[in-house]
Amino acid sequence: MVSKIPHKILLEESEMPTQWYNVVPDLPEPPPPPLHPGTHEPAGPDDFAPLFPMSLIEQEMSAERYIDIPGEVLDVYRLWRPSPLFRARRLEQLLDTPARIYYKYEGVSPAGSHKPNTAVPQAYYNHEAGITKLTTETGAGQWGSALAFATAQYGMECEVWQVAASYRQKPYRRAMMEVWGATVHPSPSELTEFGRALLAEDPDHPGSLGIAISEAVAMCVGDPNTRYALGSVLNHVLMHQTIIGEEALLQLAKVDEVPDLLVGCTGGGSNFGGLAFPFMREKMAGKMNPTIRCVEPAACPTLTKGEYRYDFGDSAGMTPLMKMHTLGHDFIPEPIHAGGLRYHGMSPLVSHVYELGMVEAISIPQRECFAGALQFARTEGIIPAPEPTHAIAAAIREALACKESGEEKVILTALCGHGHLDLAAYDKYLSGEMVDYDLPDSVIAEAMESVPVIA
Amino acid sequence: MVSKIPHKILLEESEMPTQWYNVVPDLPEPPPPPLHPGTHEPAGPDDFAPLFPMSLIEQEMSAERYIDIPGEVLDVYRLWRPSPLFRARRLEQLLDTPARIYYKYEGVSPAGSHKPNTAVPQAYYNHEAGITKLTTETGAGQWGSALAFATAQYGMECEVWQVAASYRQKPYRRAMMEVWGATVHPSPSELTEFGRALLAEDPDHPGSLGIAISEAVAMCVGDPNTRYALGSVLNHVLMHQTIIGEEALLQLAKVDEVPDLLVGCTGGGSNFGGLAFPFMREKMAGKMNPTIRCVEPAACPTLTKGEYRYDFGDSAGMTPLMKMHTLGHDFIPEPIHAGGLRYHGMSPLVSHVYELGMVEAISIPQRECFAGALQFARTEGIIPAPEPTHAIAAAIREALACKESGEEKVILTALCGHGHLDLAAYDKYLSGEMVDYDLPDSVIAEAMESVPVIA
Repeated sequence: MVSKIPHKILLEESEMPTQWYNVVPDLPEPPPPPLHPGTHEPAGPDDFAPLFPMSLIEQEMSAERYIDIPGEVLDVYRLWRPSPLFRARRLEQLLDTPARIYYKYEGVSPAGSHKPNTAVPQAYYNHEAGITKLTTETGAGQWGSALAFATAQYGMECEVWQVAASYRQKPYRRAMMEVWGATVHPSPSELTEFGRALLAEDPDHPGSLGIAISEAVAMCVGDPNTRYALGSVLNHVLMHQTIIGEEALLQLAKVDEVPDLLVGCTGGGSNFGGLAFPFMREKMAGKMNPTIRCVEPAACPTLTKGEYRYDFGDSAGMTPLMKMHTLGHDFIPEPIHAGGLRYHGMSPLVSHVYELGMVEAISIPQRECFAGALQFARTEGIIPAPEPTHAIAAAIREALACKESGEEKVILTALCGHGHLDLAAYDKYLSGEMVDYDLPDSVIAEAMESVPVIA
Repeated sequence: MVSKIPHKILLEESEMPTQWYNVVPDLPEPPPPPLHPGTHEPAGPDDFAPLFPMSLIEQEMSAERYIDIPGEVLDVYRLWRPSPLFRARRLEQLLDTPARIYYKYEGVSPAGSHKPNTAVPQAYYNHEAGITKLTTETGAGQWGSALAFATAQYGMECEVWQVAASYRQKPYRRAMMEVWGATVHPSPSELTEFGRALLAEDPDHPGSLGIAISEAVAMCVGDPNTRYALGSVLNHVLMHQTIIGEEALLQLAKVDEVPDLLVGCTGGGSNFGGLAFPFMREKMAGKMNPTIRCVEPAACPTLTKGEYRYDFGDSAGMTPLMKMHTLGHDFIPEPIHAGGLRYHGMSPLVSHVYELGMVEAISIPQRECFAGALQFARTEGIIPAPEPTHAIAAAIREALACKESGEEKVILTALCGHGHLDLAAYDKYLSGEMVDYDLPDSVIAEAMESVPVIA
């Protein structure tokens, strides 16, 4: 009675890739450089030096196709990597589709998402450079908990500024960070000039990701033993995530499958880039020809409705300018449950390949995403985080189209995290209290006014 | 730089055991039978028929050493099984111990614990018998969520009575059960006569596991399409869990290791029995000679301080009488965070092998357990559920003893679940608010008065 089709495709630890892939040198044209916010000249390594160690800055600007993963990073990766690739057989049966759906599951990491793939090397390279403490911001807490875990592995301190509204509403994510030894502050905090000024105005200030970034950066700059860590958007972050796609390539090859479609959710772009870039390399080499599709929330449609222009990475306008699809750095997305996708911009690298026509993009409203997530949870068992419900909903759309057309497409998606700390969102959906947010063009037009005009 | 010692020892799906192991026929003497609560005569299959399908009753009383796992159960097991065996290399380094610590991790299941190992076959056998609905009770929610997941796999209904205090305090476990399609009621409820009577006395009644069992049983008895499911204690439940130990045997053999010590936490006994019984078989066959140790909470020391007598399985005294180590069916343990270990009795099978001297037992207070859990989380990454923190604390005690003695013992422990829904307990520990509960002998003496005297 047992089906012979394997459900899990595993790799031994000895099969784990030992290099990250840098897609930049393979692209038909290089991505536009970041610009210094004052001079509007291309930003150089020194402009990033107060924030990051030189080894990470070199990776950010590297022209090498492959970069070796240090042994001390591989040793920590092995706590959960290689991650499993699953064939969604029971979901396929429910949908009665001839499509074959595979999902690469990153929820097996200690923090429950793909974020430790970059948190660990970022902590390692800082540790190697003699840095003893990292600061960062976090919203719902996925990134903060990944960095808390990673710094614990190298005996470093970790200080996290968490958006005050989330700090108060979600004490369990804070507890998770503290379990791994991090110190967590609600932002705005009394620890920075900026925070004190905001609290003087409003002692119950709810905070924002932009404010939390400003505080984490302020607490790092000028301290020779402290640096800052970012969980998405930048080139080196996406490169660290390519271990996802490299493993998936090996795993699909084990079952003689070649994908027809890749779908991944996009917030800052690191989960998507991590899955897609190695497959893009194979596509550029003519070895396969998958459609590669970004899926973003209808309430924050950066690629599908934003403009491709230079903009700041943070709300306060402190970072270098990056050419990316943006809704304007003043844009505050509606409070959808996929907190990790509520970012006004998109990774410059993902924006660039989108402009080159190498990937396509769609947006999906959150109720369709949660409806798909329920179908997924009741067949495959895993309860997805709100972010990858977007990728699941897109995979289900395609599987149902295959049912109509009779096509036996191979669909690969990234299930970048579990939803064990997001059950309140499911509760809202099940009780009928979840709402969708339309995004009128006028809202975007207004937010776009915050985008600086580059001469 | 990469250590050559593997961290994860994996099995392919094709290597997954296809039989459960029944320890009963291998024991030097048979365990005492359950007794009918009225006649005090040995209970027969008919006495269990209103609650369970005959296939499970046959397993409960079986004299077969091995029972085939049905293909439809293996198909669901494969959603997460075989589960990984980990070598706790980073924890060993922290402890600076010559001991080698292995842990079998059951938190990879959809519900996050070992409970689905029996929830799935229980749902399957009921489904095969034409049953369309299962009722059960749950406290903190681990068992209820496992059964909700399992019934979803066979298109069955699931109705759960959750202890009212937990229902109100832990809405996320309830949401998890609802994601998998279960209906959850706070207990006491208006749906049973017993529940209505209690609510008439106290509309805010906090409930108890005993009351919830009574309601779940009452709602099943007399409905030909509905049966009841229990998550621990009984022989067939422990037998379903032996897939844990069978896999661990195969995995240790892959790295040429033989355990010197097994430690497992004991509440109702199913996680412990599931790990230990296959190793006990090997020990009886003279193939290895591990010490096998139960670890229970100091606040509910069933084996170490309870008496071995016939007692009821539930607080209300409705079930057959079982010979087991008991603190008295009236005993209400202090509110320790390991809710799964707060049971007044012990599985009759585990009690029996303890009486035979085949296993030993210790108890550990919860603050030592959480201190060990922090060391574990900061090195191995995984945040353990409160229940297996007891096993971890015992493993750490032994590893530190090995550091003193220089012995290179091989320690195997069962990490039966993750603590993603138990972070409030860690928060209490980290904030210094967690307390330990001493258990004076007078408390046990008083509770023992509820144990019936069998002529």
